[in-house]
Amino acid sequence: MSDQVELQEDAPEEEAERTDYALEPKKVAAVLYAVDIEDRDKLVELMEPLHPADIADLLEQVNAFDRSRLIRLYGMEFDGDILSELDESIREDVIAVLTPQVLTQAVRDLDSDDVVDLIEDLEDAQQEAILGALEDTERAAVQQSLSYPEYSAGRLMQREVVMAPEHWTVGEAIDHLRNTPEEDLPDQFYHIIMVDPRLHPVGNVTLGKLMRSKRATPLKDLLEQTFQVIPAMRDEGDVAYAFNQYHLISAPVVDDEGRLIGVITIDDAMAVLDEEHEEDILRLAGVDGESTLSDSVRATTRRRLPWLAVNLVTAIAASIVISFFEEAIAQVVALAVLMPIVASMGGNAGTQSLTVAVRAIATKDLTGSNVWRVIRRECAVGLINGAVFAVVMGIVGLVWFGSPALGYVIAAAMVINMVIAGLAGTGIPVLLEKVGVDPALASGAFVTTVTDVVGFFAFLGLAAAVLL
Amino acid sequence: MSDQVELQEDAPEEEAERTDYALEPKKVAAVLYAVDIEDRDKLVELMEPLHPADIADLLEQVNAFDRSRLIRLYGMEFDGDILSELDESIREDVIAVLTPQVLTQAVRDLDSDDVVDLIEDLEDAQQEAILGALEDTERAAVQQSLSYPEYSAGRLMQREVVMAPEHWTVGEAIDHLRNTPEEDLPDQFYHIIMVDPRLHPVGNVTLGKLMRSKRATPLKDLLEQTFQVIPAMRDEGDVAYAFNQYHLISAPVVDDEGRLIGVITIDDAMAVLDEEHEEDILRLAGVDGESTLSDSVRATTRRRLPWLAVNLVTAIAASIVISFFEEAIAQVVALAVLMPIVASMGGNAGTQSLTVAVRAIATKDLTGSNVWRVIRRECAVGLINGAVFAVVMGIVGLVWFGSPALGYVIAAAMVINMVIAGLAGTGIPVLLEKVGVDPALASGAFVTTVTDVVGFFAFLGLAAAVLL
Repeated sequence: MSDQVELQEDAPEEEAERTDYALEPKKVAAVLYAVDIEDRDKLVELMEPLHPADIADLLEQVNAFDRSRLIRLYGMEFDGDILSELDESIREDVIAVLTPQVLTQAVRDLDSDDVVDLIEDLEDAQQEAILGALEDTERAAVQQSLSYPEYSAGRLMQREVVMAPEHWTVGEAIDHLRNTPEEDLPDQFYHIIMVDPRLHPVGNVTLGKLMRSKRATPLKDLLEQTFQVIPAMRDEGDVAYAFNQYHLISAPVVDDEGRLIGVITIDDAMAVLDEEHEEDILRLAGVDGESTLSDSVRATTRRRLPWLAVNLVTAIAASIVISFFEEAIAQVVALAVLMPIVASMGGNAGTQSLTVAVRAIATKDLTGSNVWRVIRRECAVGLINGAVFAVVMGIVGLVWFGSPALGYVIAAAMVINMVIAGLAGTGIPVLLEKVGVDPALASGAFVTTVTDVVGFFAFLGLAAAVLL
Repeated sequence: MSDQVELQEDAPEEEAERTDYALEPKKVAAVLYAVDIEDRDKLVELMEPLHPADIADLLEQVNAFDRSRLIRLYGMEFDGDILSELDESIREDVIAVLTPQVLTQAVRDLDSDDVVDLIEDLEDAQQEAILGALEDTERAAVQQSLSYPEYSAGRLMQREVVMAPEHWTVGEAIDHLRNTPEEDLPDQFYHIIMVDPRLHPVGNVTLGKLMRSKRATPLKDLLEQTFQVIPAMRDEGDVAYAFNQYHLISAPVVDDEGRLIGVITIDDAMAVLDEEHEEDILRLAGVDGESTLSDSVRATTRRRLPWLAVNLVTAIAASIVISFFEEAIAQVVALAVLMPIVASMGGNAGTQSLTVAVRAIATKDLTGSNVWRVIRRECAVGLINGAVFAVVMGIVGLVWFGSPALGYVIAAAMVINMVIAGLAGTGIPVLLEKVGVDPALASGAFVTTVTDVVGFFAFLGLAAAVLL
């Protein structure tokens, strides 16, 4: 959680006027000008009202040269939260520019979970530098979290928790809170976690209920009804899903013995949900899920090449199918003109089915109980839409090339390919999921191969049979 | 917020064993069996431990016939929260099956914001039925919220707020909380909102800080540093962005005069973020953003047809380009075999650039300050990847068809098309955003048209010039 920025007295009005939360280019330009003329006071004055998340966005938007000049000029003002808000792609560069003093002071401001999130992707030298900057207790906590696998609940949780034994009353809980020193409490918390003698979490009490109840009330009587305990090894994506599905605000994390070892709050779960979606969107388009706008040309090229290579193979496969029919094409060139239409329509229909299926798998809506109904639906949809466009293309073929036979052929091929598209678009992601491959990542290539091959084969094959 | 389900004593262990949160098909089968044999007690026993969100998922997974039988048998057990968790696509059917008594009792459990979310998409008759079921004050609150445009902060907020004047002390705030009747408080709250005499929100105090401070402490001294005020007309997508960007837990909503009228909590913002992402993913694939797995074949067909129609037009445009070169193809059939490769590679490269650009626009990372740098990057990436695959295809062309000239031609066309793909993939979404069209929705069609047309034209045009 980051609330290190000063409260702007005029925030409400200013907010009310702005149409959205984007950084205005004017502001960015003003900052860069202050950097150009090396006017530190001006820079600090401009940056001071900005939230660390906005400063991070600003650093991502300017080029590498301006970035390092800005950071050097900003100096000790540099806040630890800016680091945790930065895209991983430029974190290393930014940290490299920070002086040891600035880095030390910056990371000491952070919660253990933010430090973990910050250093897990850094190379060893920088990890050492940051761990070295921490106090011993803090360092121990961070290393503890790092012992859990990446993307696990154990990595995501923060270790500061507020717990109470089952037999406590409201009064005892409140006194406990009052007497706990600030630094032993999470900087924000919303529940007291009730634990049994074996430290197993048994329930949540919200601070609101606590505050409104008589001191003598047993905590037991105030437990929230929705309560989810998260194993430390649970994947962070599932954690985000649980928070969204069950409207959790915070949830206790337990070790293999079910003992309470930390807590995850909804704002961290929301950030994970955001990242997971981002990854899915990019992967569906054949872009590495980690890609960001601040990647260099080299990084971007490397991230995009593999998928294009896969696509080249599928495209060549399609070409080979076409080459079987060179003779037919040589005799009826209209086939070459029309064949991309069948393939392209199938490809689009397939992508539609595929995307719906991939999302439904991610949201756990597509399960063994309804997969066949969904596949039937997708094929039916393919059949109907295929029929519609079959008629259209039949007419186009007839009018354009004056050949009814050509019209029938393209119409038939269209129907065939769009039914196959519905089948492949749903079946392939489901199969990939079964064998443990991320459907968002791999489905696209398979489905387009199927629709290209079937499209060209059906159209050219029928044409060869009917027209020659 | 929904916490209506009973606490499962064995929840922790059970959770720990499960690998994720999906409904097990076994469970669904057991429920359907209980419905078949009309064993109400068994059904209630099976459903009782389920969270309303899970029951909603279950209702979405079974077919319409089983669904209505299940609901009838479940009867008065039917919980209002199940309705708010249901996909809009089947809400109407479910509500139609509920008896008036069940419906009345169900909606009375709900918070005003949940009722709003529930009825905003229902047809008038059902809206009346539900509004009729509410107490007058509740109904007034709901109608108030409905007066704000759909997808606005006003619709999203809940009207129950906890506020305190600037001059209050911790003691006064706590006493106020103690003395406010349960029903006037939000069922969960995490902050007290401090307001000035004009009811303008000036800051947040977390319950944790409140509880740990001396009664005499002025609330002023406990204000959180991060504080965002949300205008009621602000788009809900921007609200979700602000919560995620600034790690907000709850934020006050104000009217045009800046007066406090409600509050939005992070769990609602998280749900919006989830929906917005869902919409973008589906739209990028040419599927109506509202599509769900429980749509009927008819609904699905209707939702998919428009995009396929657009695609047909672009495919025909590409065919027209090809038809310009019928002669060349008739003489060198290899052109028909190879031409789809150039178009397909361009299409994929374009989709990659496009998706990155659309996401960057949505996350406000792509702005006037860096758009040109990004476009330059995308073109450079297109050039490099284009060159790589140009070499590959040049060799393929040479080896496959034994014609060096054909190799040069396809290589050159590949480079041209992939640079254009980078340019169009970034430029088109940016332009669409500028003119106020959702780039996620419309970019795809334009970009593929460009890459198809350019791909075929460059390849066939060069071939005609060089080979004939």
